This record gives sequence, structure tokens and C-alpha cells, in this order.
Amino acid sequence: MSKSARLQLLRKLALEYQELNGSRYDILNEPPSASEFMRLVHISRPVVIKGMTQPANTKWTNEFLTSAMGDREISVAVTPTGRADAITQGVDGKIYFVEPWVEKMSMNELLSLLLRLENGHYETDSNSEIYYLQSQNGNLFSSSSNEVSEFKPLLEDVPASITWATEALGSPPEAVNIWIGNEASVTSVHSDPYENIYTVIRGVKHFTLFPPTEGWCLQERTYPHATYTRENPGSPLNIVPSSSRPVRWSSVQDPTDPLSLPPDASPLHISLEAGDTLYLPAGWWHHVRQTGLTIALNWWYDVEIRGMNWVWLNFLRGESEDLTDGNE
Amino acid sequence: MSKSARLQLLRKLALEYQELNGSRYDILNEPPSASEFMRLVHISRPVVIKGMTQPANTKWTNEFLTSAMGDREISVAVTPTGRADAITQGVDGKIYFVEPWVEKMSMNELLSLLLRLENGHYETDSNSEIYYLQSQNGNLFSSSSNEVSEFKPLLEDVPASITWATEALGSPPEAVNIWIGNEASVTSVHSDPYENIYTVIRGVKHFTLFPPTEGWCLQERTYPHATYTRENPGSPLNIVPSSSRPVRWSSVQDPTDPLSLPPDASPLHISLEAGDTLYLPAGWWHHVRQTGLTIALNWWYDVEIRGMNWVWLNFLRGESEDLTDGNE
Repeated sequence: MSKSARLQLLRKLALEYQELNGSRYDILNEPPSASEFMRLVHISRPVVIKGMTQPANTKWTNEFLTSAMGDREISVAVTPTGRADAITQGVDGKIYFVEPWVEKMSMNELLSLLLRLENGHYETDSNSEIYYLQSQNGNLFSSSSNEVSEFKPLLEDVPASITWATEALGSPPEAVNIWIGNEASVTSVHSDPYENIYTVIRGVKHFTLFPPTEGWCLQERTYPHATYTRENPGSPLNIVPSSSRPVRWSSVQDPTDPLSLPPDASPLHISLEAGDTLYLPAGWWHHVRQTGLTIALNWWYDVEIRGMNWVWLNFLRGESEDLTDGNE
Repeated sequence: MSKSARLQLLRKLALEYQELNGSRYDILNEPPSASEFMRLVHISRPVVIKGMTQPANTKWTNEFLTSAMGDREISVAVTPTGRADAITQGVDGKIYFVEPWVEKMSMNELLSLLLRLENGHYETDSNSEIYYLQSQNGNLFSSSSNEVSEFKPLLEDVPASITWATEALGSPPEAVNIWIGNEASVTSVHSDPYENIYTVIRGVKHFTLFPPTEGWCLQERTYPHATYTRENPGSPLNIVPSSSRPVRWSSVQDPTDPLSLPPDASPLHISLEAGDTLYLPAGWWHHVRQTGLTIALNWWYDVEIRGMNWVWLNFLRGESEDLTDGNE
């Protein structure tokens, strides 16, 4: 099929989806039952869930976190820009998908760095680096790894599984993660092959969401892989091309800016405050910002591969491939 | 998009679906819970459910049915061919979508006509007409009609709702139907916009099933509408064109014959004996035959319109439109 025929097809599907679903989303006042949640998964629209508070919501003060974690080292992403796992121009002028530098530090050190920023020091110090705890490898619980969590003292405050989601989907989460950052960090727009339950413990998270039918609006291209690297302690971070294979990633740096999107795109904007939970369906594109020192937890459940679900998600990504090549 | 590009796209989707899902189907030994059923709906593959017996399974003998129903009149489809709601050539040489003639008769009369056939009389009497109780308008229960069921004395043996399906889908069935026929009747291949729970009370039903991704293999075309009509009592049935709007219907008369299908088609064959239940997902194409005097019940639940489900079902039917025009 020609590029223009594919674009026409994708645009038609995106508009039909919008026509049928509008731009509203449901807000539940309490967590769903297993069968209600399974229905939400079938519908596959984002849903905000209130009333799913965790022990952490009241317990995880800076003092508690510092004292519970003590000298344990945790892996923190460091970038000069606040954009870990994002496309960025290297000094050679080429654009790379750049992974963050990772530094080990104590919880106390991380919180101090994040709060320093929160007090406004960032503005006056252009050499500041941005720290974001976003290891997202099942850093609390992982069903595919036996490594001990770096956050062992916090695990007693985090359910390893969300009862109604596990009953609905028929298996426990693949990974449970903790995220700690502030407004200097942004997560670039992408989609995951997971059903995601995402809850905010402290601060505010701002999601910009696109249905799978609008993936083509985000102009995925394939970028060479690089990593921020510090040659010596104290020296600045440089983008160093790696031998990892190239990464397909959205070319849209700021999807909160309507001018960076085709007019057909119809993003949902959802802000989650402490105590709010988002059901983020598999395959939905999301860009995430945050306000203040923000702590979040998320449970990733494997997406259903059987039936049509996976065929469609693959189809939408496949048809949108290379649509915008040469348009850079 | 050109016809050949559309065909290529539909073929690709059908093959990807087959690759991921194979041709197996699950058999449950007992009815699912609400959340398990909702997961099955999300996967949207046919499932056979054992152990969901109804009071009717033992109670509905010919004697019981005759005596309980008495002289009440029930609406029975009559055709010369056993193909009600199917494409058929008229005397003018044109092909019509033909609805059956409907006659009112008592249960005793219907059962006698069906058993006469079962005893082999049909073979020797070419003027025999074929009777099939298939009114399928919510003839037991209907959520959109206040008409009294023709089968009122039987209703106490039929649950108006399947507990786990109603809880999963969030609302009661749109329609509950009874079907009574024998091997002289066949239901032509079609799909319904309903999640279908179909249970066999007596006899055997043989389903030939195609996923929504193989709708294009069934070559839907638009046919003028007609009805079998008897001018005077006792005169033969004629195909009489009607003023109803044309009907889009599969051109494949016998999808159990592999030669009538493209080589890409991959039908599932499932036979249900008395006591067996089929979950037949919305949008799946089905052709139904039966062995012996067969009584079945079905519960139709509205398909989920929200999310992508309906967009995809519409897309598949839309793209397969007119693919085979002029190929007749």
C-alpha cells in the first residue's frame, strides 16, 4: 500500500474512533470489581480511580523514606535535560535515542537533589543535572527477576498485586515500579505492551494520552541508540553512541503542544493528584510531566495476546511505520 | 484504496490473526465466573462450556412441550428449501435475500411436522416444505418489546438472564430465543452484533465459524429483498420481491465446503450436543446445521460499542465491501 493510502486509512480509523468515543474519560469513586475492571480493559479507555489509597500515601514522608532506606544505594537516572529515554541531538548533529546515565546514591541524597530543585535553585544554576528515579525494571517486584529490590524496606507498604486486576487478568503483575522525581523531568511519549495501574503517592502527575489509533500522529522513526556518559566523576554528561540496536521512537518531543501534532490528533489530558490512580490501557501513548516532588507506583500486567487485541495494536504500529521519513 | 490493496490488507490481517490464535478453542468444564467470562469476551474466541444444564434439558420431552403449550399458536418459518434468511434464485433468474413465509401452528403440529421429517418422509416427498422455529425476535424474553411471548408456559424453565454473563457485561440480555428444527433446516452464514450464549437442549447443532478477520472470505454482496409467499392456503411458496431495502449478505451458500472458500479461510467446526453451551463472540461468522429434532436456547447480549471493538468490526466489514463485485 502506498504511504498516502496508509495515511488515509490511519486517519479514517482515528476519526472513527474519536467519533465513537469522544474525549471523555470515566472517574470511578472506588476501585472496580474484577469483572468491572475486565470490562474496562475490554473497552480499553483510560479511567481515573479514586479511593485506592496505599499505606504509603500517609507514611512516605521525606523523613520516613530517608530513615527507612538508610545508606542503601538506589539507581537514579541522570541527564542534563530531564529527558531520560528520549530523542536528543548529539554534538555530531545527529539525533539519537538517548538513555540516561545511572548513578547510585542514597534516598537522602536523591531527595535532597530533588528538593534543591524544588526550591528553585535549578533556575539559577545552568550546570545542574536532573535526577529521576525511573529504573522501571520491576524495581519493587518483578515476576521475571530474582534480584533483591533496592527498595526492600519499602516493600511492606506496597501491594505486590492489585487484587481486582490480578483476578480480572488471570495472573499477577509482570513488574511493580516506584518513580521519584520532580518537574524538571519529563517522560517522552511512548506506549507499553502492558495494562498499567498507576497511582500517585505524593505530588501531581500530568498525563497526555493518545489512543492506539493516533500512534501515526506521533511520527515514530528509528533512531540510533546512545547513552549519556560521564568520563570521570565530576565531568559533564556526553551523548555517546552505543552498539545497541536502533530504537523506534516518537519524533514528537512535546505532544502537549498542539502545533507539534497533526490536526487530527485528539489527546486526553489527565492530571493525577496524590491518592489518584489511572488505568492506562495497553498500547495507549503517554507523555508524563509532574509537579513538585512526585512519588508514584505502578503495576504492569501483561497485555492479552490472544484474540484480535494484539493483531490490531501491531497493525496500527506497522501501518504507521516510515510514514514521515524524509520529513524531518 | 484499490480493491487489490484492500484485499491484500484483509488477507494480511486474517493470516496474522490465524498465526497468533491457531484453530484451537477452549472447552470449560463448568461455567466461568463473571470476570473469567469478561476475559473470554475480551479475547473474543469461541468457547464451549460444559455443565450449564437447564431444567429444560430433562423436562422438555415432546409430551411435555405438547401438553404445556396446548393450542397456543407459535410462529414458524416455512421454506421449500430449509434455507430461511438466505440468498436464493428467483424464477426471474435474479438472486434475492429471501425471508421465510411464517405460519402459525400449535407446538404439537410443529413437532409432528419435524418428526415426520426425522422419520425419513422428506426424502420421498419432494413437495414437503421445511419448518423451522427460528423467530429470533426475543421470542422468549425481549428487553425492547412488551409483547407476550408465544412460549409463555415454557418461560419458567428458561433463565431470563445468565448470571455470570449479565454481571460481566453489565446489563441483561437484549433477547432470549428458542430454536426448534431438524436437519432439513440450515442457517446461512452471517454475523450478529451480539455476544451470544447458545445452549443445546435436545439434538446436535453443528457450527462452522469464522473470525471477523475472515469476513472478506465470505464475499458479502447486496441482494434485493424478497419473501416466500403463499397466495392461497395450500398453494406452493413463491419468491416475491418486496419493497424492503436490499440486504448485504454472504454469497457463500455452503461454507462447510472448502471449495467455496478462498484458501486463506480457516473455519472452526464445533458441534454442540444436548447440554453443551457455546460462547459465540460478537462479529464471528457462523453457519449452523443440526442433527435430529433439535431444540436450542440463546441469550443475546449487546456488543460493547465503546473503545476499539466496534471500530474494528466496522472496519473489517467496510474494507471487504464490494471486493468481489462482478465476480458472480
